[in-house]
Amino acid sequence: MIKVGIVGYGYWGPNLVRNFMEVEGGMVSAVCDARPERLELVKSRYPSIALVTDFDALLSRKDVDALALATPVSTHASLAIQALKAGKHVLVEKPLAHSYEACQQVIEEAERQGLALMVDHTFPYTGAVRKIKELVDSGELGEILYYHSVRVNLGLFQHDISVVWDLAVHDLSIIEVLASEHPIGVSATGMSHVEGQPENVAYMTLFFPGKTIAHIHVDWLAPVKVRQTLIGGSKKMVVYNDLEATEKIKVYDHGVVLETDPDSIYDMRVGYRTGDMWAPKLDDSEALRTMARQFLRAIATGERPLTHAESGARIVRVLEAATESIAGRGALVPVA
Amino acid sequence: MIKVGIVGYGYWGPNLVRNFMEVEGGMVSAVCDARPERLELVKSRYPSIALVTDFDALLSRKDVDALALATPVSTHASLAIQALKAGKHVLVEKPLAHSYEACQQVIEEAERQGLALMVDHTFPYTGAVRKIKELVDSGELGEILYYHSVRVNLGLFQHDISVVWDLAVHDLSIIEVLASEHPIGVSATGMSHVEGQPENVAYMTLFFPGKTIAHIHVDWLAPVKVRQTLIGGSKKMVVYNDLEATEKIKVYDHGVVLETDPDSIYDMRVGYRTGDMWAPKLDDSEALRTMARQFLRAIATGERPLTHAESGARIVRVLEAATESIAGRGALVPVA
Amino acid sequence: MIKVGIVGYGYWGPNLVRNFMEVEGGMVSAVCDARPERLELVKSRYPSIALVTDFDALLSRKDVDALALATPVSTHASLAIQALKAGKHVLVEKPLAHSYEACQQVIEEAERQGLALMVDHTFPYTGAVRKIKELVDSGELGEILYYHSVRVNLGLFQHDISVVWDLAVHDLSIIEVLASEHPIGVSATGMSHVEGQPENVAYMTLFFPGKTIAHIHVDWLAPVKVRQTLIGGSKKMVVYNDLEATEKIKVYDHGVVLETDPDSIYDMRVGYRTGDMWAPKLDDSEALRTMARQFLRAIATGERPLTHAESGARIVRVLEAATESIAGRGALVPVA
Amino acid sequence: MIKVGIVGYGYWGPNLVRNFMEVEGGMVSAVCDARPERLELVKSRYPSIALVTDFDALLSRKDVDALALATPVSTHASLAIQALKAGKHVLVEKPLAHSYEACQQVIEEAERQGLALMVDHTFPYTGAVRKIKELVDSGELGEILYYHSVRVNLGLFQHDISVVWDLAVHDLSIIEVLASEHPIGVSATGMSHVEGQPENVAYMTLFFPGKTIAHIHVDWLAPVKVRQTLIGGSKKMVVYNDLEATEKIKVYDHGVVLETDPDSIYDMRVGYRTGDMWAPKLDDSEALRTMARQFLRAIATGERPLTHAESGARIVRVLEAATESIAGRGALVPVA
Repeated sequence: MIKVGIVGYGYWGPNLVRNFMEVEGGMVSAVCDARPERLELVKSRYPSIALVTDFDALLSRKDVDALALATPVSTHASLAIQALKAGKHVLVEKPLAHSYEACQQVIEEAERQGLALMVDHTFPYTGAVRKIKELVDSGELGEILYYHSVRVNLGLFQHDISVVWDLAVHDLSIIEVLASEHPIGVSATGMSHVEGQPENVAYMTLFFPGKTIAHIHVDWLAPVKVRQTLIGGSKKMVVYNDLEATEKIKVYDHGVVLETDPDSIYDMRVGYRTGDMWAPKLDDSEALRTMARQFLRAIATGERPLTHAESGARIVRVLEAATESIAGRGALVPVA
Repeated sequence: MIKVGIVGYGYWGPNLVRNFMEVEGGMVSAVCDARPERLELVKSRYPSIALVTDFDALLSRKDVDALALATPVSTHASLAIQALKAGKHVLVEKPLAHSYEACQQVIEEAERQGLALMVDHTFPYTGAVRKIKELVDSGELGEILYYHSVRVNLGLFQHDISVVWDLAVHDLSIIEVLASEHPIGVSATGMSHVEGQPENVAYMTLFFPGKTIAHIHVDWLAPVKVRQTLIGGSKKMVVYNDLEATEKIKVYDHGVVLETDPDSIYDMRVGYRTGDMWAPKLDDSEALRTMARQFLRAIATGERPLTHAESGARIVRVLEAATESIAGRGALVPVA
Repeated sequence: MIKVGIVGYGYWGPNLVRNFMEVEGGMVSAVCDARPERLELVKSRYPSIALVTDFDALLSRKDVDALALATPVSTHASLAIQALKAGKHVLVEKPLAHSYEACQQVIEEAERQGLALMVDHTFPYTGAVRKIKELVDSGELGEILYYHSVRVNLGLFQHDISVVWDLAVHDLSIIEVLASEHPIGVSATGMSHVEGQPENVAYMTLFFPGKTIAHIHVDWLAPVKVRQTLIGGSKKMVVYNDLEATEKIKVYDHGVVLETDPDSIYDMRVGYRTGDMWAPKLDDSEALRTMARQFLRAIATGERPLTHAESGARIVRVLEAATESIAGRGALVPVA
Repeated sequence: MIKVGIVGYGYWGPNLVRNFMEVEGGMVSAVCDARPERLELVKSRYPSIALVTDFDALLSRKDVDALALATPVSTHASLAIQALKAGKHVLVEKPLAHSYEACQQVIEEAERQGLALMVDHTFPYTGAVRKIKELVDSGELGEILYYHSVRVNLGLFQHDISVVWDLAVHDLSIIEVLASEHPIGVSATGMSHVEGQPENVAYMTLFFPGKTIAHIHVDWLAPVKVRQTLIGGSKKMVVYNDLEATEKIKVYDHGVVLETDPDSIYDMRVGYRTGDMWAPKLDDSEALRTMARQFLRAIATGERPLTHAESGARIVRVLEAATESIAGRGALVPVA
C-alpha cells in the first residue's frame, strides 16, 4: 500500500484525494494546506486522513511515501525538489514547472534520488485521447497532416498565469502523446483585454520537421465553451469534441487524393473521397484514476508513465517559446 | 434599365446572370465566355441573352452599360481596366485584383473615367452580417475585443490561389464592414500538404491600433464544414454559425467585469455575468440580390456601395501581408 | 422518348416539370393549368412546352403519352380515371385519392386499360430511406420492434385536408416500404386549434400482426421543424434525422438482451449492450429523379414501381382509419 | 431542526440523504434498509446517522419526525399509512401509490392525523420547469394549445412497473403544475417487446375540457436519450430539452394567426409570424433541495407544497387510466 500525501486542497486537490483513496494499492495518509477551513472539509469527508498545515511537517512524516502537488505553478519546482530530497516520490499538477530550466532541475533531482517523478496531465488518460492514439499508432489515419485545437472557456481569470499556461497546456499534452515528432518552432499571438493581466486569448502554430502543422486557439472570454480538436490524416480524419456526451470522437473516412486530369494540365485539382463516419464506443473510466494507477506503478516498478517528466519538460519548453513569440507578435521561436 | 454583360459563365457566373435578370432596374444583355458549351447553357435557360466568345466584341456592344467579371483572379485587373477604358461600369468578383498595386491601378482608372467600380464580396450583404453590423454599430455589444473566425471546407483545391485568397477573403470582408478601425499588422502561418500546390491550411492574426484582435483559420482539407465566427464585445458576445438553418446568430448577454476582492489582494479575478441568450430573426433575402441592387444604384446615383473598391483594395493588402507572413513563418508584416 | 403532360403548376408541378425534362428517356410536352399567370411562368422557363388551360384539350393531344397529376387531392381520382380512359399512363401526387374506394376505382380502370399507374410518394426514393431499407432487408437491424416518427412543420395550414393526410402520408409511405407486414389496426387522436379547420396536430399508433408497433406524430403548429424517425431493431437501432445535413442516418450498435440473474428471481432485468455508432454515406441523387425514372420504366416495361398503386391504396386506407379513430378519440379502427 | 428518517437506500435514497443532511432546518437521523451492505455505505459516508434494518423499529424512534419513502411503488401506501399512524410526517417517492384508491386511503390517513403528506415529483422543482410555469402563468405564451413530451431512455427494464408508471409519471407531474385544467380522458397505446414483461414503449394522449391536448411518448429501448417537451401557446411556443447543457429552454416568438384574404373566400389559411428566439438563463440550484425545503416548510407551517398529495393522486388516476386504455388498444378512458 503506497501512502500518498496531497499538497493543496483547492480546486484540484479534492479530485486527487478521492482518486488516491479509491485506487487499488494506494491511500491518502495526509493532506497539507495552509488554510484551516480547507482542512476542515477534508476532515468531514475523510476522518482518517491526517491534516497538516506545514509542508516541512509533511516531509518529515514516515507515513508518506509520495507527494502529489496541487499548488500554484510558481511553487512546483521548489516544492518538488524539497520533496525529492526528503525521499518522496513526486506527482506534480500540470505544468511541471514555471520554466524549462526549473523542469530540468527537478528532473535531475529525481534522477539523483532514484525516485519517481510524473506530471498530472489528465487528458492523455481519457478514453477519447487513448482511442485517438490507438487510431494514430495503428496507421489507420495515415500520415498526420494537422492538429487544430480550440479550447475556449467561461472560467475565471487566473491571476498568476496566462491562458497559454492555463489552457494550451492541455492541447500540448495531447499532441505530445499523439505526435511521432516534436515541434521545432512556435509562432504565437495573443492579447490581454484586461489591464495589467496576462493574455486571455492566444493562438499558437507549432511547426514540425515534416509537413505536419498544429494550431491551438485558447480563450477565457468566450460566450460558449468549446473543446474541439480536428486531426487530419492522409487516410482518415478525426473530430474530437470533448463536450459531446455520447459521440466525443467521430472518425471520417475522408482522405485527400490528388487527381490529375490528363486532358488538361491547367485543371489539376485535388479530389475528395467522402465516405462513412464512425463514432467508436469509448472507455469512460475516470482519466484521473488511470493516471493515479500509473503513478503507483511507476513507484512500484520504475515503469515510465505516459506523462513522464521529460514529456512534461518539453511541454513547458513550448509554453515558454509561445510566450516569447507572443511578445514578438508572431515571430518564430525555435524549440531546440 | 441598366444592361449588364457577364464575363465568365463558370461556377459563379450563373448566379450573377440570374440575379441581374431578376433585380428591378437591371437586365443581362450579353454573356461572354470562351467555351461554347458554357454559352449553350445560357441559351437554353435565357434565349434572349446575346452570346459572345470574345471579350473585345463584348466591349464594343452598345447594349452593355456595365460588366460583371467572374473570371480567374489573375485576370481581374486587366479586364477591369479594359472595360473601364471602354466606358463600362465594372463589378469584380472577389478579390478585387491579384495585388494591392493592381487594385490601385483599377481604382485610378475608374476615377479617371468617372465610372462605378465595386467588388462582389457577398457575405456583408447577408441578413446575418447585416444584423451583426447593426448590433456593433448601435453599441449593444460594447467595445469589440476580438473576432475569431473558422472557415473550413470540403471543397476542391484551387489550382491558382491559396486557401487564404480563396476563403480568408470572406472573413476579411466581414471584418472590414464590422470593424471601426483597419488592421495595422498581420502574423500568419500555413502549410501546403500537397506537393507543388499553394497552402491548403492557414492561420492569420490581425492586429489593430487598440486592443482588438482578429484571428482567421481557413482550411480546405477538413472532414466537416465549419463556418463559425465569435465576436467578443465588452458587454455582449455573438456566435455566428453560418451553417445553422434557423439560429445563425446567437447573442449572449455575457460580458467581462473585473472584480476586486478588497479582502485579498492575491485573489483578484475577473467575474463573469452570464445571462440570457437571444437569437434574432434575420432577413433571409438573397445577399447577391442586395449586392446587385447596390451596384445598379452606384451606377445610377454615384452612391458608394458597402463593398466599394477602396475596401476591396484594403482586403487585398491584408491578403498580400498574410502571404508574406506565411513565408516568414509568422513574422509580423505591417499593413501601412 | 416518353412525352409527359403535367397537370397543375402550383407548388409541386415545377419540380415535376424540371425532373421529367431532365430525366433520360422522358420529356415534358405540355403543362395544363387553369391559371394563365402560372402558364406564363412555364413559358419563360421552357419556351418549348405547350401550354394548355383545359384538361380535355390536354387529353386529346397526341404528343402526350402520360400524365402527372399535381392537383388537389379531391380531384385525383376523377382526373386519373379520365386520363386512363383517354389512354394515358398516370402518375398521381400523394395521396393516390381521397378515399380507399376511389383508389380501387382508379386501380381497376388502370388494369382495364393496361396502363401504368403510380403514386408519387417521394421519401421512399431518398438515399436515406433506401439505405434504411437495405439495413432492414439484410437483417442487420434484427427483428423490427418499432418505428417512431415525428414530423412537425412551420408550414401553412392546408384548407382542404388535415395534417394526417398532408404529413402522416409521408411516414406511412416510408413504413410501407420498410415493413414486412401491413398494419392491422389504427388508434389515433388529434385536435384542431383553429375554428372550422381540419386537425392541425395528430398522433397515430399502428398495430401489426406481431409485436411491431409504429407511432406517428404530425403537427403544423410547432416552433421548430422536426423530421425524426427512430427504428428499433432487436440487434441495432437507427436514428434518421432528415434535417441533418451530413449525418441523416445513424446506426447504433445497440440491442436488447434479456439477462436472467440466477441468484435472484426478483431481480430479472434487461441488459443493454452499447457499442459503436456508424453514419453511412448516403446516395444524394434527387429522389424525384429516381421516381420519374421508375415511372418511365413502368410505362416502357410494365415493371412494378416501388410506390405502386396498390401500396398507395393501402396508405389511403390507413389515412381513412386514422381519421375515423380521431373522431372516436383513439378507439381502435381495424384495417382489414 | 426536523429529523428525517430515510427508508430505502437504493438508487434514489442516497440523493434524499444528501439533501436532507444539507438543507437548512433539517437533518437525517436514521436510514432504514433491510440490506446490511447498503447500510454499510451510509456508515462510511455519514457516521452520525443511525442505521436500522427494521421498519417498525424506525417507527418507534423518538428522533424521527418525518419519513421519506424511497421503496418500490407497491409498498408506498402501506408504509405511508403505518408511518402516519405512528405520527410521522411522510414524503413519498413518485408515484404516490400503486392505485388511485390507495392514494385516497393515504390522504385520508394524513388528514385524520393532521400530518404533512407530500410526493417527491422532482421535475416541477427544476429551474427549467419553474421558468416555464412563470411564462405560462404570466400569460406570455397565450392560451396553451398543446404539450408534446418525449422521454426515451437507455435505462434498465423495471421488473415491477411499466414504462408508463416509470417515465410518463415525470411528464404528468410537469403538466400537473403547468396546466390550468385537469385532463378529462386518456387514450393510450403501448407494447411489451420482452416476453412476460410490462410495456416498454407507450404513447398517451390526454384530453382536456377545452382545445388543449397533451401527448406523452415514453420508451425504454431507444438508441439515444431524448427528453424533449414542446409547449405550444397561441402567442409563443417553448422547446424544453432537458439534455441541453446551456439552452434547456428556448422561447419562440411564434404564434398562429388566422389570415383571411379578402379577395378569395376559398383561400383562407393560417398565417405564421416567426420572430426571435430567446433562451432565458435558468436557476440551476438542485431541484431536490428545493423539494426538501418545501417538505420541511409543510411540516413547520402546514403550507401546501407544490407537489401535494392530491396532485399526486390525480397523476396516479391518469396512470391507471392509461394502463386501462393500453389494454383497450387506445379506447378512451374518462378521468372523472
